[in-house]
Amino acid sequence: MIDIQTRHSQGSLMHVDTLLKCRWVIPMVPKNTILENVVIAIKAGNIVKLLSPKEAEAFSADETFELNDHVVIPGLVNAHSHAPMNLLRGMGADLSLMDWLQTKIWPAEAKLMGHDFAYEGAKLAAQEMLLSGITCTNDQYFFSEDIARAFEDSAMKCTVSAIVIGFPSAMAQSTDDYFRCADALFERFQGNAHVRVSVGPHAPYTVDDAALTRAAKLSEKHGAPIHMHIDETAFEVSESLRLYGMRPVERLARLGIINDRLISVHTVHPDDREIELLAKAGASVAHCPSSNLKLASGFAPIAKMMQKGINIAIGTDSVASNDKLDMLAETRLAAMLGKATAAEPTTMKVFDMLYAATMGGAKAIGWGDRIGSIEAGKAADLVAINLADINTIPTTDVATQLLYSADRSQISHVWTDGQCVVSKQLLQKSPYFDREYSVNVAKKWQNAL
Amino acid sequence: MIDIQTRHSQGSLMHVDTLLKCRWVIPMVPKNTILENVVIAIKAGNIVKLLSPKEAEAFSADETFELNDHVVIPGLVNAHSHAPMNLLRGMGADLSLMDWLQTKIWPAEAKLMGHDFAYEGAKLAAQEMLLSGITCTNDQYFFSEDIARAFEDSAMKCTVSAIVIGFPSAMAQSTDDYFRCADALFERFQGNAHVRVSVGPHAPYTVDDAALTRAAKLSEKHGAPIHMHIDETAFEVSESLRLYGMRPVERLARLGIINDRLISVHTVHPDDREIELLAKAGASVAHCPSSNLKLASGFAPIAKMMQKGINIAIGTDSVASNDKLDMLAETRLAAMLGKATAAEPTTMKVFDMLYAATMGGAKAIGWGDRIGSIEAGKAADLVAINLADINTIPTTDVATQLLYSADRSQISHVWTDGQCVVSKQLLQKSPYFDREYSVNVAKKWQNAL
Repeated sequence: MIDIQTRHSQGSLMHVDTLLKCRWVIPMVPKNTILENVVIAIKAGNIVKLLSPKEAEAFSADETFELNDHVVIPGLVNAHSHAPMNLLRGMGADLSLMDWLQTKIWPAEAKLMGHDFAYEGAKLAAQEMLLSGITCTNDQYFFSEDIARAFEDSAMKCTVSAIVIGFPSAMAQSTDDYFRCADALFERFQGNAHVRVSVGPHAPYTVDDAALTRAAKLSEKHGAPIHMHIDETAFEVSESLRLYGMRPVERLARLGIINDRLISVHTVHPDDREIELLAKAGASVAHCPSSNLKLASGFAPIAKMMQKGINIAIGTDSVASNDKLDMLAETRLAAMLGKATAAEPTTMKVFDMLYAATMGGAKAIGWGDRIGSIEAGKAADLVAINLADINTIPTTDVATQLLYSADRSQISHVWTDGQCVVSKQLLQKSPYFDREYSVNVAKKWQNAL
Repeated sequence: MIDIQTRHSQGSLMHVDTLLKCRWVIPMVPKNTILENVVIAIKAGNIVKLLSPKEAEAFSADETFELNDHVVIPGLVNAHSHAPMNLLRGMGADLSLMDWLQTKIWPAEAKLMGHDFAYEGAKLAAQEMLLSGITCTNDQYFFSEDIARAFEDSAMKCTVSAIVIGFPSAMAQSTDDYFRCADALFERFQGNAHVRVSVGPHAPYTVDDAALTRAAKLSEKHGAPIHMHIDETAFEVSESLRLYGMRPVERLARLGIINDRLISVHTVHPDDREIELLAKAGASVAHCPSSNLKLASGFAPIAKMMQKGINIAIGTDSVASNDKLDMLAETRLAAMLGKATAAEPTTMKVFDMLYAATMGGAKAIGWGDRIGSIEAGKAADLVAINLADINTIPTTDVATQLLYSADRSQISHVWTDGQCVVSKQLLQKSPYFDREYSVNVAKKWQNAL
């Protein structure tokens, strides 16, 4: 079905690098739109123009993709990940959060943590993400420089966190240490075309007021996003009330954290006042429904937050609590769960959810200028999903079937900066994208546990 | 990786049809068990024995499958489907239940319903099911004879409902008519090796007391399961209280419906008394979490029902309200959602969920004697999932990664009655398992809408 033709510049034709002849395109901007029979022209890694088939006759290209049964969307944006934890997949199911952390995750991390663990784990995550249509992720972990290198080497974009946390790790021993690492991280990736840096105070219960104030200032200095777990559990809220006499978002607002650069992750237990604070500040929420269910954290009032105008993004969290980096499945779950939580089947509409998984995510994590929608001038980070599949026929409603019926295995092609990195469901063009390499890396770390 | 060798009976070797050399086997019976390096011997469609590699040296076989990276489980049992609705996939997202039924589903059914719609729709569903590892389904719709033929032609097993509903349809005009169709259905499939029949009173709010009493008697006469939607919505419960002065399960208990042959579908809103009635009677519950979320029906107290000893099975419902027939994804969701609903991450344990998706389903729908577990004498309805995949490495915990990380696209092989019907992710051996045929059937019905 996919027929790649190689053509060369011919006479007066306008020449581009790549043409995608798409049966359907959901550009995300403008919203609630589906285009049929559109040709996307790509040059020097960017989207040049969306053309009608007639207009496309005036163009020649090095490569043309015939996507006759496909819907093309912007690359999915994963608004919350801990990529190196791909090496800890499947550990400690059916445990309470504290048992899980104390008996499984923390001991494993204490044993393995370091530059190689971060790089090689993120490499595995990058492969799973690309095959799942994720072209940009918002990561928080230790050794973010190594994680960022892994994503760069994988032809992805990312925002990585300069993490700040109130206890020592293999990476840093003190608050001052964490902020030194943060400064180095900002310096290392300044002006990088694929890597952006956020400030990552871990959570309200793991970072003290002084460090939070420093984090807020660092974010302001760089105009960088703040990436933080907030209101994840009922226990976090009750502890905040006990220790500070106020709820987490109220406390963070006083410390300068609640603003339009904030990515508030999870946010399962905000009350109406906290929702209002987040909405008024122009903050974003990264909703991670699988993780919230599996850890029994609760049901985020996501329909209400969306209705109040908060920008909603979708995140997978790590495979240790999810356990898949599948943004299509995650967005589907967010839609269904949001309806049931609100007791209102007409909320969490299909196009709003697809927007959250792309443009909503891009805006949240500081990439809204470059990705998240199919518009002229933006990076050609694109995903084609083949709907001529037993899972998605008859194709009565393309957007609905994309969200609710399509599997990530139907993602046939992924392009980043106009380069085809997944073709016919297989990763392309990298020495790291090799099944044996990945299986061996996984085995090595499994044996080291 | 899969190496099929053809060998012939050699001297003193014991000869079987097929040997599956499995890296891992989860037999479901006994519970909580995972076996490593096991050979499954198959003859005349049945499982003969589970062998150690050493014991297997005494066997020869026509075909041997080397499943070096695979976990083999019993075929998944879908405890609730409406197979012909695969032709209505994706219709009416983001609508309330009544809007959805009245403006989308019922008009479409009124226009299309008939023998061909039932048969061809079920054919599409059968293909999606087999590729999803489902080898037996419990269906309820109109024209069940045609549905059963579709599953038989697809080398699947099924239980089909003799539906009883309090309004006329293309199939029957009156209660007497429905019971005439029921008698014919029981007669048609008596003694059939692949098709069993249940009595299917649709729901408490669509069937009157007299018809329910007849349905109970018919079930008793044939020793057949009763397949019924019960306590699906809060509205159903409040209407029952208004009209009958009691809750649905209490009313049904008085009419002879609540017994150990009952498959109570959905059961989202039972109170403690209803749970006790179901548990004491030995009834089964078919839990359909995607449908309950998407239609905003609510959160079934599934952990509590399991704890009270009710046999739990998992169902996909139809693609009109789900919208995928993916039992792995459905079982994963059931596990996570059950934890969150109970606010208890240690409940809905991995092995219990895998049991619900196989043996629990088989018991519920009247097939427990033949399928649901990997035991000598049972039908060789088996599924192999390849775990050497970027989605499931490192394979730290096989059962956890099967439930939480594996996609249905990792199902490499499916056998029914020992016949390999899915090999290397592709359907085998049937004129109906042809992609073009399916796409054309889907288009034909889409155009007829």
